[in-house]
Amino acid sequence: MFLQVVNPNTTWAMTAKIEACARAVAGPGTRVEAVSPAMGPPSIESHYDEALAVPGLLAEIEKGERAGADGHVIACFGDPGLDAAREIATGPVVGIAEAAMHTATLLGRSFSVVTTLGRTTGRAWDLAERYGMRGKCRGVHACEVPVLSLDTDPDARKIITEACADALSEDGSDVVVLGCAGMADLCTRISADLGVPVVDGVTAATLAVQSLVTMGLATGGKRGEFAPPPPKLYSGLLQDFTTSR
Amino acid sequence: MFLQVVNPNTTWAMTAKIEACARAVAGPGTRVEAVSPAMGPPSIESHYDEALAVPGLLAEIEKGERAGADGHVIACFGDPGLDAAREIATGPVVGIAEAAMHTATLLGRSFSVVTTLGRTTGRAWDLAERYGMRGKCRGVHACEVPVLSLDTDPDARKIITEACADALSEDGSDVVVLGCAGMADLCTRISADLGVPVVDGVTAATLAVQSLVTMGLATGGKRGEFAPPPPKLYSGLLQDFTTSR
Amino acid sequence: MFLQVVNPNTTWAMTAKIEACARAVAGPGTRVEAVSPAMGPPSIESHYDEALAVPGLLAEIEKGERAGADGHVIACFGDPGLDAAREIATGPVVGIAEAAMHTATLLGRSFSVVTTLGRTTGRAWDLAERYGMRGKCRGVHACEVPVLSLDTDPDARKIITEACADALSEDGSDVVVLGCAGMADLCTRISADLGVPVVDGVTAATLAVQSLVTMGLATGGKRGEFAPPPPKLYSGLLQDFTTSR
Amino acid sequence: MFLQVVNPNTTWAMTAKIEACARAVAGPGTRVEAVSPAMGPPSIESHYDEALAVPGLLAEIEKGERAGADGHVIACFGDPGLDAAREIATGPVVGIAEAAMHTATLLGRSFSVVTTLGRTTGRAWDLAERYGMRGKCRGVHACEVPVLSLDTDPDARKIITEACADALSEDGSDVVVLGCAGMADLCTRISADLGVPVVDGVTAATLAVQSLVTMGLATGGKRGEFAPPPPKLYSGLLQDFTTSR
Amino acid sequence: MFLQVVNPNTTWAMTAKIEACARAVAGPGTRVEAVSPAMGPPSIESHYDEALAVPGLLAEIEKGERAGADGHVIACFGDPGLDAAREIATGPVVGIAEAAMHTATLLGRSFSVVTTLGRTTGRAWDLAERYGMRGKCRGVHACEVPVLSLDTDPDARKIITEACADALSEDGSDVVVLGCAGMADLCTRISADLGVPVVDGVTAATLAVQSLVTMGLATGGKRGEFAPPPPKLYSGLLQDFTTSR
Amino acid sequence: MFLQVVNPNTTWAMTAKIEACARAVAGPGTRVEAVSPAMGPPSIESHYDEALAVPGLLAEIEKGERAGADGHVIACFGDPGLDAAREIATGPVVGIAEAAMHTATLLGRSFSVVTTLGRTTGRAWDLAERYGMRGKCRGVHACEVPVLSLDTDPDARKIITEACADALSEDGSDVVVLGCAGMADLCTRISADLGVPVVDGVTAATLAVQSLVTMGLATGGKRGEFAPPPPKLYSGLLQDFTTSR
Repeated sequence: MFLQVVNPNTTWAMTAKIEACARAVAGPGTRVEAVSPAMGPPSIESHYDEALAVPGLLAEIEKGERAGADGHVIACFGDPGLDAAREIATGPVVGIAEAAMHTATLLGRSFSVVTTLGRTTGRAWDLAERYGMRGKCRGVHACEVPVLSLDTDPDARKIITEACADALSEDGSDVVVLGCAGMADLCTRISADLGVPVVDGVTAATLAVQSLVTMGLATGGKRGEFAPPPPKLYSGLLQDFTTSR
Repeated sequence: MFLQVVNPNTTWAMTAKIEACARAVAGPGTRVEAVSPAMGPPSIESHYDEALAVPGLLAEIEKGERAGADGHVIACFGDPGLDAAREIATGPVVGIAEAAMHTATLLGRSFSVVTTLGRTTGRAWDLAERYGMRGKCRGVHACEVPVLSLDTDPDARKIITEACADALSEDGSDVVVLGCAGMADLCTRISADLGVPVVDGVTAATLAVQSLVTMGLATGGKRGEFAPPPPKLYSGLLQDFTTSR
Repeated sequence: MFLQVVNPNTTWAMTAKIEACARAVAGPGTRVEAVSPAMGPPSIESHYDEALAVPGLLAEIEKGERAGADGHVIACFGDPGLDAAREIATGPVVGIAEAAMHTATLLGRSFSVVTTLGRTTGRAWDLAERYGMRGKCRGVHACEVPVLSLDTDPDARKIITEACADALSEDGSDVVVLGCAGMADLCTRISADLGVPVVDGVTAATLAVQSLVTMGLATGGKRGEFAPPPPKLYSGLLQDFTTSR
Repeated sequence: MFLQVVNPNTTWAMTAKIEACARAVAGPGTRVEAVSPAMGPPSIESHYDEALAVPGLLAEIEKGERAGADGHVIACFGDPGLDAAREIATGPVVGIAEAAMHTATLLGRSFSVVTTLGRTTGRAWDLAERYGMRGKCRGVHACEVPVLSLDTDPDARKIITEACADALSEDGSDVVVLGCAGMADLCTRISADLGVPVVDGVTAATLAVQSLVTMGLATGGKRGEFAPPPPKLYSGLLQDFTTSR
Repeated sequence: MFLQVVNPNTTWAMTAKIEACARAVAGPGTRVEAVSPAMGPPSIESHYDEALAVPGLLAEIEKGERAGADGHVIACFGDPGLDAAREIATGPVVGIAEAAMHTATLLGRSFSVVTTLGRTTGRAWDLAERYGMRGKCRGVHACEVPVLSLDTDPDARKIITEACADALSEDGSDVVVLGCAGMADLCTRISADLGVPVVDGVTAATLAVQSLVTMGLATGGKRGEFAPPPPKLYSGLLQDFTTSR
Repeated sequence: MFLQVVNPNTTWAMTAKIEACARAVAGPGTRVEAVSPAMGPPSIESHYDEALAVPGLLAEIEKGERAGADGHVIACFGDPGLDAAREIATGPVVGIAEAAMHTATLLGRSFSVVTTLGRTTGRAWDLAERYGMRGKCRGVHACEVPVLSLDTDPDARKIITEACADALSEDGSDVVVLGCAGMADLCTRISADLGVPVVDGVTAATLAVQSLVTMGLATGGKRGEFAPPPPKLYSGLLQDFTTSR
C-alpha cells in the first residue's frame, strides 16, 4: 500500500517531520511518502494563505495519483482543498482535522483543540461544524506560536503543553486535539505530561486512510458531486500545473 | 461610490452580463465595474474549478483595492474565496449566495435554490448551513444546464423556469433563489412567469455592498481572523500574482 | 419610492429621531416617512408592551398601504407583528432586528447585541434563533438604560459604548448590533470610538427595504401563509383594558 | 383549585366546548372556567388574527388573576400571548400547543400535527422549533376545515380522521397532535378509530396547569424577563382599526 | 388508577421516600406503589451502575403490568431503560428526568440541573439533548453529595441549596431541576429558600403519568419500535427474571 | 496487540463470522478474539433485547481486560453498553455503529443506513444524533430480514442489496452503511454489485481500535465521567457476574 501525505505549505523541514510521524504509525506493508507543493505559502496561517496553497496541493495530489498512490492525507489542520482532492483522487483522501476530530470523539464526551495563532481558530470552528462536532468541541485555543516557530522556538513544547492544560481545565473536556501538523512530533510527550489522550491529526489521518484502503473503500458520490471534474481549458498562469490533467 | 464585481470565472461575456445586471440596480452615485481574473477556469462547476479560480479572484480583489474600490461582490454562487477576500479588502465583501439567501429570508418562511448542475448542489447546502439557513432552505435543485450554456441554449430560460416551478411545488416554499450568476438576467422574467419572488444574487449582493458602504460598514475582526495576512514569500508559479502585495 | 417606517411605540420624539436616521441613508429617489401608532405603549420593554403595541402598529401599516407605501420598516428591535404585517402589506416589510442581524453576518464571523433592559434579552435570543443566527450571535447584553432615557440620560452614550466594549471583549465577536431603535443616532459615534463595525437596525432595515423594492421583490407565500387575511367581524372594544393597568 | 381557560377567539360556542373538555379531565378539587375575550376575531387563522386576539386575551388573564385563578390555559394552538401572559399572571400559564407537543413526546419517538388551514402550518412549525421539538415533529398537516366549520361541517370528523391517517402514514410517526382547540371533543373518537394515541392540547394543558399548581410551581424569571411589566400610560383607543377591515 | 413507581436502585429507604413524595401529589383516586428491583446496584452513579440496574428495573415493570398498573414512573434521573419499558408496558411510562425537564420549560426560558456527582453530568446532558432541551438547559451542576448520603449527610440540604443558588447565578436561568430522585423531599424547602421554582422529577413524573392515564393515552408506535418484543430464549443467569414473559 | 471483539448476542455462529471479518482486516501484529456473553438474547432486535444484553456484554469486557486485551469492539449496531464499557476498560472501546458512521463521513457528503428490522431504525437515528451525524445520515432503511435469518435465508444478500439500491436512490446519498454486525460478510460483495462504497462496522471498528492502540490512545475523562466505577455490593442474581470486579 502506498500512501501520499501532502503538506500543503512549502516548508520541507516540516514535511520531513510529518513524514516521520506518519511512518511511525503506518503498518509494515504501507509505504508513506510526504511532499510539499512547488508553489504556495511557507506556512498556512490565514484564509489567504490557505487559498493560495490549494492549487499547489491539488497538483501534488494529481502527481500522487500518477505515481500510484492508494490514498492521500492532507496534512494541514484547515483541511484545505479536501473536496476538490476527493474529486480528482481515485482512492480515499482524509484531512488531518477531520481525522483528529473523529478520533477524539471515540475517546470521550468532548475535546478541546489547541492550535497556533488566534486568527486560525475560526477555521477550526468551521470544520467542527462541518463534521458534526459542534457539540463535542468545547473550545478552540491558540498558543500563539507561529507555525514555523514550532521547531525553532525552544519554549514551543512548554507553551503548547500549558495551553493544553489550560484548555482542559477551562473546557472540562476529556481529550486534546492538536491543531497543526507541525505539532505532530510533540503529541506523545504532551499526552504523557498531562495524563490525558492527545490526538495528532497526521497520525490519525494516516491510519484512517490506511484503514480505508484496507477495507477497499474510496470516495463515494463518483457519479455526482465527487465525479472527476470534466476537462476545461484553464487560462493564464495556472495553466502550467493544470494542463497535466 | 465605486463597487467592484468579480466574476471568478474567465468568461468575459458572462462578466458583461453580470455587470449590466449590477448596474441596473445600483444607485445613481454608484459606479460598478465587473472583472474576470486573468487565470482560472472558464466556468465553476466543481470543487476543483472553484479551488483553481480563487487565486485569480483574490488577485482581482487586490487590483480593485488599489483602484480604490469601496466594496466588492464575488459573483459566483459558491461564494469562493470570501473569507480570504475579507482579509485583504478594506471595504465590505459580499458573496452572491449569501446575499441571495439573506434576501430570500426577508420575503417568507422558506426558499428553494435552483442551480445549474447537480454536482454543485452540495456546495449550496454547505453555504446554507454556514449562513444559518439550513432550516429555511427547503431544497436545492439542479436544472442540468451547464453554466456556459445559459446564454447559448435557446431553451435555457424555459428549462430553468420549469425547474423553479417544480421546486416550489415539491418544497412548498415561498421564494426561489437562482443559484448561478449566469442566471441574473433571467430573474425578473421568471418571477413574472411564476408569480412568486425570485432572487438573483448578483443584484442582491450589489445592493448589499452598496448599503454597507452607505452605512460606513466594513469587515470586522480586523484585529483577529480578518486582519490583513502578514507578508510571506510565496514560492513557485503563483509568485507572479502575489508579489504585488 | 415611498418607504414607511413604523415606530411601534407612541413616543413621537423617538419617531422623529428614527426618521432622521432612516432618511440619512436612503437614496435620492426614496421618500421616507416615519410614524407612531395612535394607540399603544410609550416604550416597548416587555412581552406585554409588545403585545399591546402590535394592533396599533398593524393599523399604521394598513394606513401606509392606503397611502401607497412601497415598503415598510418595523422600527423596534423585537420585530413585533412582522408576520402579520407581511400578510397585510403588498410590498416588503423588514424588522430592524432581522435587518441588523443579517447585516452583521456580512461583516464577520460573529456579533454581539447590546440592548436596553435585561428583561428584553430573551426576546433578542428568540429572534436570533428564528433568523438562524444562534451560532453567530455570541451574546446579548443589557446596558440597563430604559428606552425613554436614551435621549434624556446625559451618560447614555458613554454607558452604551462601555457596554459595547465589554460585550466585544467578553464574546470575542467581530461586530456589535445595537438592540434598540432609540440608539440609531449613536451608531456612527460608537463605531468610531471602538474601531469596530456597529450596526444599527433602523438604517439597515431602511436600506434593505429600499433594495427589495429596487429589485421588485415583495413578500412571497401570498397564496398560503402570507396571503391577505380573509375579512372577519372583529368584536368589541380593545379600549377598556388599556386604561385599567 | 381554580383554573382559568382562555379561548382567545370570541366564539363562545367553541368556548363552551373547550370548557366541557377541560372539566372532563380535571380532578375533583379543581374548578375550571373558560372564557372568551370581549374583543378580537371570531377565529384565529392568520398571524393578523392572532395579533388582534392577544390584547383581549391578556385582559381576560388579568380578570382571571383578580378573580383568584391559580393558573391559566391559553386555548389556541398558536399559543398566542404566552410570554406576555406569564409576565402578568402569578400562577402558571400553559399554551395548548406546548402542552400537546410535550405530552406527545412522552408517548413515542415522533408525532404529526393535524391542524385546520394550511396557512397556519407555519406557526405550528415555529412553535415546534421554539419548544425544542423540531426533530420530533415529523409533519404539520392541514385538513382545510376552517375553525368555525369544525362544529357545523357534518364531515369534519371524517375529514380530520382521514388527515390523521394520512399524516401517520406519510410521516411514519407514533402519535397525532390535534392542532386546534376546536378539535378537542373529537380526540377520543379519532384515537379509537385509528388505534394510535391522539393528543388534544386543551386537556393536556388543563392537566399540566393542574399539575403545576399541585406542585406549587409558577412561572420563574420573576426578577427578570417574566417580572410584572412596570405600569405605563397606554395611549389611544385600540377600537378604530378593528372595524376598518 | 394504579401507578407504579420504580426506583431502579436497591435501596428501599430511598424507595419509601420516593413513594411518599409521589403519593403527596397524586389525586384522590390514584394509588401509588413504589418498588425497588430484587437485583442491581444500591445507587446509580455511573454508566456501569445504570446498565446493571436496567434488567431488574424491567422485571419490576413486568411485575407491575401483571399487577394491573395503569402507568409507570422510572425514578432515576438517568431515565434508565425507558425505551425498553415502553415496549413491555401497556400503559404510559415516564422517566423523572424527562418529566422534570418538560415541566421546567413550562415555567420559563431556561433551567439549570443540580445533580449529585460530577461524573453523572454527562448523562444529564445526553438526556437534555434527546428531549430537545439542549438550548433550554443552561447548565448541569454537581453538588458532589453521593446518592446514599443525601439522607445521612446532615449538611446535604444546605450543600444542595447552595449549589442551586450558584447554578442560578452562573447560568442566569429561571428554574432549577433537581437531578436525583433522592432529592425529592427537599424540593419545596429549597424552592422556598431560593424564591424560584424548583422542579422535582418524582412528583413531576407521577403527575405526568396520572395525566396521561386520565386522558387515555399510552405509548404509541406499538406496531413498530415500541411493539412488545417477540419472545426469545434468553440464555444464562438472566433467565430467572425473563422467563416470566 | 490483542483486540477483543464482543458480539453481545449469544449466537456463536454469528460470533465466528464476525471474528473472521475482523481478522481479515487486522494488521499482521494484531490478534483478534471474538466472544459472546454467557447470558443474554440470541439476537438484539428491540430496546428490551439490548437492555438484557448489556450486563453479559460488560462481563465479557471485564474478562477481556483480565486477559490483557488492548482494546475492545462492541459488535452490535446499537452500540449497547458503550459508555459503561469505557468506564471499565483501560484501553479504547469502539462500537460498530460509531465506527461505521465516522468512516462513512470520510467518503462523501452523506450516507444511508440499511438495517434489519424496521423497529430498530429508531435506535440508529438516536446514534446518528449522538455522533453528530444527523445531517449526514440521509435515511435509515429496514430490509426486514431478522438478524438470525441473515445466514439462513438464501435470499438475504439479494434482499439487502436491493434495499441498499433503493436507499441510495431515495436518499441521494454517496455511501451505504450496513446496520447489523451480521451483515459484515456481505459488505464487499454488495459494494461490488452497486459500485458505491459500502461500510461494515465490524471491520471499521476493528481498524479504528487498532489505530487507537497504535497511537497509544485510550478513553479520556478517566478522572471524571469515565473513571472506573467505585466498587459496590450489587444485590440479587446479577451478583454472580459482578463479584469478579
